[in-house]
Amino acid sequence: MMAAAPRGSPSALRVALLQLAVSADKPRNHARAREALEAAKRGGAQLAVLPEMWNCPYSNDSFGPYAEDFSEGGAHSPSLRLLQDAARDLDLAIVGGSVPEERMQRGGGAAQQKQLFNACPAVQASTGTLTGVYRKTHLFDIDIPGRITFRESDTLTAGPSGLVLPADSLGSGIPSLAVGICYDLRFPELAQSYARRGARLLVFPGAFNTTTGPEHWKLLLRARAVDNQCFVAACSPARDPSGEGYQAWGHSMVVGPFGEVLCEADEDPLTLFADLDMAQLDERRRNMPLASQRRHDLYEVLDKMGPCEG
Amino acid sequence: MMAAAPRGSPSALRVALLQLAVSADKPRNHARAREALEAAKRGGAQLAVLPEMWNCPYSNDSFGPYAEDFSEGGAHSPSLRLLQDAARDLDLAIVGGSVPEERMQRGGGAAQQKQLFNACPAVQASTGTLTGVYRKTHLFDIDIPGRITFRESDTLTAGPSGLVLPADSLGSGIPSLAVGICYDLRFPELAQSYARRGARLLVFPGAFNTTTGPEHWKLLLRARAVDNQCFVAACSPARDPSGEGYQAWGHSMVVGPFGEVLCEADEDPLTLFADLDMAQLDERRRNMPLASQRRHDLYEVLDKMGPCEG
Repeated sequence: MMAAAPRGSPSALRVALLQLAVSADKPRNHARAREALEAAKRGGAQLAVLPEMWNCPYSNDSFGPYAEDFSEGGAHSPSLRLLQDAARDLDLAIVGGSVPEERMQRGGGAAQQKQLFNACPAVQASTGTLTGVYRKTHLFDIDIPGRITFRESDTLTAGPSGLVLPADSLGSGIPSLAVGICYDLRFPELAQSYARRGARLLVFPGAFNTTTGPEHWKLLLRARAVDNQCFVAACSPARDPSGEGYQAWGHSMVVGPFGEVLCEADEDPLTLFADLDMAQLDERRRNMPLASQRRHDLYEVLDKMGPCEG
Repeated sequence: MMAAAPRGSPSALRVALLQLAVSADKPRNHARAREALEAAKRGGAQLAVLPEMWNCPYSNDSFGPYAEDFSEGGAHSPSLRLLQDAARDLDLAIVGGSVPEERMQRGGGAAQQKQLFNACPAVQASTGTLTGVYRKTHLFDIDIPGRITFRESDTLTAGPSGLVLPADSLGSGIPSLAVGICYDLRFPELAQSYARRGARLLVFPGAFNTTTGPEHWKLLLRARAVDNQCFVAACSPARDPSGEGYQAWGHSMVVGPFGEVLCEADEDPLTLFADLDMAQLDERRRNMPLASQRRHDLYEVLDKMGPCEG
């Protein structure tokens, strides 16, 4: 599925969303990710986005056993190395969805304590450099009786801050972008803060479920785009056809700054593309200059996140 | 069209939206409003909401000539008196959409200066007391070439603050509610601030147009409801069948705190009803406790609006 923007428009950015099938077999997940990254490159993408938790089943039982250590630039993390190799081999910028990350934290009594994060590595095209890591700041703790109950906080630690990458830091021509993961979408202040920092593309790896997905996934993605006059790219895992375990909603999509859906998957595995015409964003902002129309005398979104360099 | 909540549920509030046909004939607009208020009462409504600019055409040429003076509790304003009489006669709480209001402001050199506002009067059931006035804080100044260009600021002055009415202040059983008008919807900070102040129902009189209406009206109403876990009631004028002048989108609707559309009009004149089960709101907030999950260490919506007593 291609967006309406003409191929080769000088201001267009081609983005690929990798709606991967995810299994309990990590090497198989890796093989699928590599294949999809190659397909993204063949399709002309400059930026590829992976889904939330693409190397393991989305379950508290899995996060620990599948967790990897991102320290020393990724030397100890097979999932991160896969992304770095692909970024280098394919000259492709990558927002690496998320995988469980384990970090040793020095405890009060100099004891080592292991913490798990839902972590998104961002990898630079051509060099494969780990440019930043976003760690999910709002953990998915909900309880809709009889429908969906989940507590990420049973195993995960919430991240300390946001991630905003300046233009060209993931590769030449990649606009300023910022990352949130899944449940973060429900907190508009994050996207508002990102947009105020100059992000023009908000990237949300996410695995909404079959209860909240049909109700809110597209709604929230479109609202974040329209309210902040940004592009929004969201990438979900595919639905598990076995029907067992957590059922991701799928429906990866890219939304333009007027709320227009540029491409959308259904629930099956798919690599889908959109051409983001960044000049459209400037035009929308000229037509409807929300940033200058805000009433800073009445309210302010106070951003306390500090550097956001991940 | 009725909502799914059972009639007579002890926590339900019946709201009527008066999607009025509006003409250049003010007495005719008044007669239609009175008829619709009576129909609302006959339908069992406790709260009636009128559309934006229901006493005049939506045009900068009209705002001055149709403007009324709300001072002295409404004694000089036929449109306001109509609402007050209806609130008394029918024992009906009324959020009075908006009409152009003229106010004399003392200028620098003691000179009198007339200002026009897009103003929403809120009137108490039974007593007819003018409980508060909301004056649109974000003026509709947009320019989408070839589609829609409008500059409210050519004639109107932006209001100084918000309006939040505590529970029961418009009548027994009326929940805490807050008012925004039309273009205010595009500034999520207003609804965020209102919800933080305890508003459980956000009321938006509004006249989106046939360009932005189909793209954004329902999207923004649903997003404000879901993000703030509030009910949202939005009332538009009907489309003008002559096709002349400003074409309102219509599509008045009530949205529940999970983003569910409880009732929705098309573009024709209609008085429509919804039963708002306020207990559902508490349940949604229990299931997904967004308020306590916000990361106040990372961001804050700073509310500088002061009392908001209109």
